[in-house]
Amino acid sequence: MSEAIAVKSLVAGSLRREVTRLSSTGAERLGDAVSIEEPLEIRLSHMDGQARSEQSIAITMRTPGQDQALAIGFLAGEAIIRRADDIRSIRHCGPPSPDKGLQNVLRVELEDSVRVDIEVLKRHFYTTSSCGVCGKASLDAISMQAPEREDSGFAIGASVLQGLPAKLLPRQDEFTRTGGLHASASFNASGRIGRIQEDVGRHNALDKLVGSYFREGGLSGFGILLSGRASFELIQKAAMAGVRLVAAIGAPSSLAIELAEQEGITLIGFLKSSGFNLYCHGQRVLEA
Amino acid sequence: MSEAIAVKSLVAGSLRREVTRLSSTGAERLGDAVSIEEPLEIRLSHMDGQARSEQSIAITMRTPGQDQALAIGFLAGEAIIRRADDIRSIRHCGPPSPDKGLQNVLRVELEDSVRVDIEVLKRHFYTTSSCGVCGKASLDAISMQAPEREDSGFAIGASVLQGLPAKLLPRQDEFTRTGGLHASASFNASGRIGRIQEDVGRHNALDKLVGSYFREGGLSGFGILLSGRASFELIQKAAMAGVRLVAAIGAPSSLAIELAEQEGITLIGFLKSSGFNLYCHGQRVLEA
Repeated sequence: MSEAIAVKSLVAGSLRREVTRLSSTGAERLGDAVSIEEPLEIRLSHMDGQARSEQSIAITMRTPGQDQALAIGFLAGEAIIRRADDIRSIRHCGPPSPDKGLQNVLRVELEDSVRVDIEVLKRHFYTTSSCGVCGKASLDAISMQAPEREDSGFAIGASVLQGLPAKLLPRQDEFTRTGGLHASASFNASGRIGRIQEDVGRHNALDKLVGSYFREGGLSGFGILLSGRASFELIQKAAMAGVRLVAAIGAPSSLAIELAEQEGITLIGFLKSSGFNLYCHGQRVLEA
Repeated sequence: MSEAIAVKSLVAGSLRREVTRLSSTGAERLGDAVSIEEPLEIRLSHMDGQARSEQSIAITMRTPGQDQALAIGFLAGEAIIRRADDIRSIRHCGPPSPDKGLQNVLRVELEDSVRVDIEVLKRHFYTTSSCGVCGKASLDAISMQAPEREDSGFAIGASVLQGLPAKLLPRQDEFTRTGGLHASASFNASGRIGRIQEDVGRHNALDKLVGSYFREGGLSGFGILLSGRASFELIQKAAMAGVRLVAAIGAPSSLAIELAEQEGITLIGFLKSSGFNLYCHGQRVLEA
């Protein structure tokens, strides 16, 4: 993903529309930038026994732009793909939506060698197991096994971390325009922001980030900065991507902390220029 | 849902844990309140032809407490139930989770007369239609038809609306404690906050609110206040519940505005004491 593509997609992330602004000075009509939310259907073509099978595997409400990165990050997070060359082709299909001219269907064709366990995708929803499962910790049902990876040795100074929020906001292009987007960003051990991805859905923003690094060796050498809160789902996506440090500007949930602890991920919350909370695996934070 | 139950559940919405706080004064260990995030599996028992069928229909990551209201609101939003007496029983099942003693499985038993179209639940995910569907507006696939209802005549003054945010925060018990929860609240035409529900997931907070009113004639006589942003999904849930006015403290997405316009819902965003943006159906906002 080149800088040029990123900029193009961000520009497409909002639209202007007329709105009535009411305040103490009365009512006025003005143009306002609104974050675009549109459905993206991800279709998967893969070998199923001797024949090729094609299925719609997910519909996510996303901000258009970076659709390929989003799909790649989503598939990597679900362990459907493991290497860049698992993908034969990835492109929008079908005509654009009649009213807005948007491409909302993306077709991912996997190589013949890739075996897909479609059942794993169903775990989020609509499982048909008998009631014998009652009481089984449902968490098991939604957890993924993150692949074993060598620790990248990523470590960063506390004051460098505290400098990150100030670097994020000026680069949240769409958020600045609309006030309506979540961001996920990568940063290196020197505190330099690498890439930033924005979306109406926080999980999509992280999928886009993971997907944009997928063909380039992944994110294991980077930390990840989240513009909002850290949930279980986000930590799981980070774990699947091999990330060793997650810093959230918002609060983490109980299960986010639990999973980070279990997966060996350093988790930081309430990150501000004045300080932060360190929840687990503090060895990667240097008091420098 | 009595006040007593609501208070009890809110108290259960966070846990305390040790955290390292790093700031300019150095590192210190302290106790911190963390929002609880745990999976809730919703199981549905219903008549399928001549026999009773039981299935797990959803796993949602939620803050424990108000589980019954959450499940009822979810089922109402999916048009699985339409009246309070569609439900024969609703209770947790199975033993508590071994480590935390939490009940994370809820079983909803429907009356024999209720016909369930399980296919409608699958629309969010994993549709198996052939590629002929490419180009079909995916939005159709995820939209629900809101029931026709008489307009309740709900209307509210602009200055009354501007007074709502100040009333919400003191009642966001868990947010105040953890900084980590979304809230949905009901309010009447005089600007009095009715009920408030909190959750790590914004859709859950709204499901809880809708569910808590389900046995009492619903929410059509109230406005709804959202602590964060307004997405398509939230407006859809509001539409299914017959709500005529939604006010968000955060930004709305493009599709939230579109759906509100189509469903005849008054949509307000960026609600502050100093003013707000009015996106559509302004006839319910009085300049008083």
